[in-house]
Amino acid sequence: MDLGIKGRWAILAGSSRGLGRACAESIAREGVNVVINGRTQTDIDVAVKELISRYGIEAIGVMGDSATASVQDELMVACPQPDIVLLNGQGPSPKNFLDIEIEDWNNAIVQALTGPLGLVQRVVPGMKERQFGRIVAVSSAMVKSPNSLMSLSHGTRLGLTGVLKGLSKDLAKFNITVNQLLPERFDTARQEQMAHVAMKFLGITYEEARAQQIASIKAGRLGRPDEFGDAFAFLCAAQAGYISGQNLQLDGGSYEGVF
Amino acid sequence: MDLGIKGRWAILAGSSRGLGRACAESIAREGVNVVINGRTQTDIDVAVKELISRYGIEAIGVMGDSATASVQDELMVACPQPDIVLLNGQGPSPKNFLDIEIEDWNNAIVQALTGPLGLVQRVVPGMKERQFGRIVAVSSAMVKSPNSLMSLSHGTRLGLTGVLKGLSKDLAKFNITVNQLLPERFDTARQEQMAHVAMKFLGITYEEARAQQIASIKAGRLGRPDEFGDAFAFLCAAQAGYISGQNLQLDGGSYEGVF
Amino acid sequence: MDLGIKGRWAILAGSSRGLGRACAESIAREGVNVVINGRTQTDIDVAVKELISRYGIEAIGVMGDSATASVQDELMVACPQPDIVLLNGQGPSPKNFLDIEIEDWNNAIVQALTGPLGLVQRVVPGMKERQFGRIVAVSSAMVKSPNSLMSLSHGTRLGLTGVLKGLSKDLAKFNITVNQLLPERFDTARQEQMAHVAMKFLGITYEEARAQQIASIKAGRLGRPDEFGDAFAFLCAAQAGYISGQNLQLDGGSYEGVF
Amino acid sequence: MDLGIKGRWAILAGSSRGLGRACAESIAREGVNVVINGRTQTDIDVAVKELISRYGIEAIGVMGDSATASVQDELMVACPQPDIVLLNGQGPSPKNFLDIEIEDWNNAIVQALTGPLGLVQRVVPGMKERQFGRIVAVSSAMVKSPNSLMSLSHGTRLGLTGVLKGLSKDLAKFNITVNQLLPERFDTARQEQMAHVAMKFLGITYEEARAQQIASIKAGRLGRPDEFGDAFAFLCAAQAGYISGQNLQLDGGSYEGVF
Repeated sequence: MDLGIKGRWAILAGSSRGLGRACAESIAREGVNVVINGRTQTDIDVAVKELISRYGIEAIGVMGDSATASVQDELMVACPQPDIVLLNGQGPSPKNFLDIEIEDWNNAIVQALTGPLGLVQRVVPGMKERQFGRIVAVSSAMVKSPNSLMSLSHGTRLGLTGVLKGLSKDLAKFNITVNQLLPERFDTARQEQMAHVAMKFLGITYEEARAQQIASIKAGRLGRPDEFGDAFAFLCAAQAGYISGQNLQLDGGSYEGVF
Repeated sequence: MDLGIKGRWAILAGSSRGLGRACAESIAREGVNVVINGRTQTDIDVAVKELISRYGIEAIGVMGDSATASVQDELMVACPQPDIVLLNGQGPSPKNFLDIEIEDWNNAIVQALTGPLGLVQRVVPGMKERQFGRIVAVSSAMVKSPNSLMSLSHGTRLGLTGVLKGLSKDLAKFNITVNQLLPERFDTARQEQMAHVAMKFLGITYEEARAQQIASIKAGRLGRPDEFGDAFAFLCAAQAGYISGQNLQLDGGSYEGVF
Repeated sequence: MDLGIKGRWAILAGSSRGLGRACAESIAREGVNVVINGRTQTDIDVAVKELISRYGIEAIGVMGDSATASVQDELMVACPQPDIVLLNGQGPSPKNFLDIEIEDWNNAIVQALTGPLGLVQRVVPGMKERQFGRIVAVSSAMVKSPNSLMSLSHGTRLGLTGVLKGLSKDLAKFNITVNQLLPERFDTARQEQMAHVAMKFLGITYEEARAQQIASIKAGRLGRPDEFGDAFAFLCAAQAGYISGQNLQLDGGSYEGVF
Repeated sequence: MDLGIKGRWAILAGSSRGLGRACAESIAREGVNVVINGRTQTDIDVAVKELISRYGIEAIGVMGDSATASVQDELMVACPQPDIVLLNGQGPSPKNFLDIEIEDWNNAIVQALTGPLGLVQRVVPGMKERQFGRIVAVSSAMVKSPNSLMSLSHGTRLGLTGVLKGLSKDLAKFNITVNQLLPERFDTARQEQMAHVAMKFLGITYEEARAQQIASIKAGRLGRPDEFGDAFAFLCAAQAGYISGQNLQLDGGSYEGVF
């Protein structure tokens, strides 16, 4: 399937590892030039080098926290006319609701709500002028089924979900789509980290923690990052321009609700 | 209908006027003692006096912004063992998404997300011990159908919605329920204010703005505050203990979605 | 709380036992005259007698399957000008999806979709004329989180949910509300029956089946029919006229989804 | 993007014209062999011939109403081991709720609920054995925002939505996904037909009816069938195996609700 986006440019926040990196891979394969971002220069360098070599596209690295104004400015300098934007950042750590302090909230809010929206504010005016835009946020399955231990996550990500949905209504007429991907348990470093959290919270072994992760997924397996990347690529396609305001769950069929 | 809550105590944030005041009225009528809160001492004094005189209950006034730690501490001093808590605060003003600044977010977040959660953190431990609690937040219809002009509202209130939902799952076994009321267009000062915003944004007259408000409601009228107050009172009833995690829309049947 | 419906008339389908009977009790207590319906004459006679004696209201019994045109005609003869209508019928039995036959569907559809809608068609024109109506359907928690074993239930009840939601939009301006109650695990004969189904399907004892029912509810208990009845009564209240198109879950806080 | 389904077989109900035909085109292009179905032999013949000639795949035609047992049997004879199934049928006509008769319901139910489920019952056992399946239903945007004039449509399609969701939970572990596509206003003969309905209902011209259709879509245009086909193709991809139980709206960003 030809996605019709060869030669376009993408700013990909949080794309040097994990699901973000998989997203970079899938659209680079389709001929999209990319700005790779992350917090570790060596990860970025590896990603940039591999993507250029594999797909013959242009790739630029920008190191730093994409939730900050200064890094967002650098991203825009690296790519002043982005056609595609991936919003992706570090997820907050689990914490008992009663133990959450205001500093926890403030950090989580910057990472998952106001930071990403700052980037959206930067890219939207140009996308409107150029009449093309694909904005996709990596959210979490928990925005649809919250668990209090992850309050810092869904308490911020649901806010983002709402703001993006409202925006999507305004932007549709400019051929700008705004969608979210809701992953649940992909085989990345994040699940390794969550397994260690579970070991500590529940007093179980690593193997038990991993088995619990798999047992919680109706498909009986974790997702593969390349599956995630290809779903992202599809939402970026020229022919996905009629799909907007969607929250696509990638969860192995696990969500209980009908909608 | 006897709601079975005579003699209980309620902390009612933002209850000196409008919908919050209507909530106070409805539960005071059922014999609940109340802490009235607001930003204007005279409003509080009037409310306290009227409620005592009408219903023979106890009522205490606490002035100040209920989203702040100091006022929350005062509320807990006034009522150390609340059975019922109303979360209600000032809604953020409309603003074009591209014009929203970080200060706007920070204010809105304190008012509608972290502030209310601070109060929840204060009341939950005691409610668990006493095996009774009714926590109700005044949210907005926009958490289910966002409009970008109100991003500061649904961007924070949806976060609160998610955190409260997650919490509701943990608290059900303690006979603590956590629910939200989602009003759309009640006949209060808020709609007066929104009418003036509409006059400015749309260049229309006051009468046109009010007519537009009514036209947007399928029931063909605005809601009455006492209708809101009685819905709140019902969710606080002893016999409403099996209802939790709900987002009850009071919108004259206007919401388009099936769920 | 005065519900403002004293002297009104209600047609209550499936009200001689269980949740329907509890609904009858709650509104009769508020002074509403009722038509009691069920499939067993003695149950009806007991209900009618008790309601009259306890509450001094008028009560009329109509025996037969309320999903049939003839019984619906009798209900309208008994009460030509109903203000309140309860839609309630027998729930279909569990069945493995692959074993469902067309006859199973046809029965379930009449019971849970086309039958109830026939009654709605009969009552709506008069309610529009009289500018008052409260239509409430007893649905199931499964309409929001389907389980394939209950396909006959949610496959029909979700259809009803949609039709009633569409209707609610048209009827709001006539002061007619249309809502659903979504129970999960109330302490009625239905749960006894489901326990016996579970014993057979899962090879467990009665005590284990009942313990599983309780364990599935976050509140740690089954609901009480009187809690259900009072929620119904509240939705029938005069002051609930601004609440329409809602699906209120009575499930002890068990539903996982945020909406 | 390589969808990884070259050489697989698909049964495509209602695929000789419109959106179904577009689905056939998109997966034939990916190398999938197809069974084309419709009610008019010449349409089928044209489709079969064109698909074979364009893509070098195998294509078989089966004429008749795919909601009937006999045609379903023929479809299974033509393709005993389908990997992919498209559920697609004629949508019911608009009708005022109070005018709907039992025959209307019975027809709509066979077309949109029990008929499609009969086909699902036929294909699921083999898919489980072969550990691969992609079941996709063409539903309607109205299942999420019902309009009473289309009660026959959402009253049946929502039932199907629920049954498929329940099933999706059971089938995920067999690498069988079950999803729905929810179109709103694609540029097909269906919208022509709806325009004529609107002309009659609203007393407007054809041009006005078409302009209203476009005005109702936030993207400011109707969808193109090839956009629909490619979304279907993506959900059929090997790498879409972690996506199940989803209701993907293709509506130009028009749906108001957050979820």
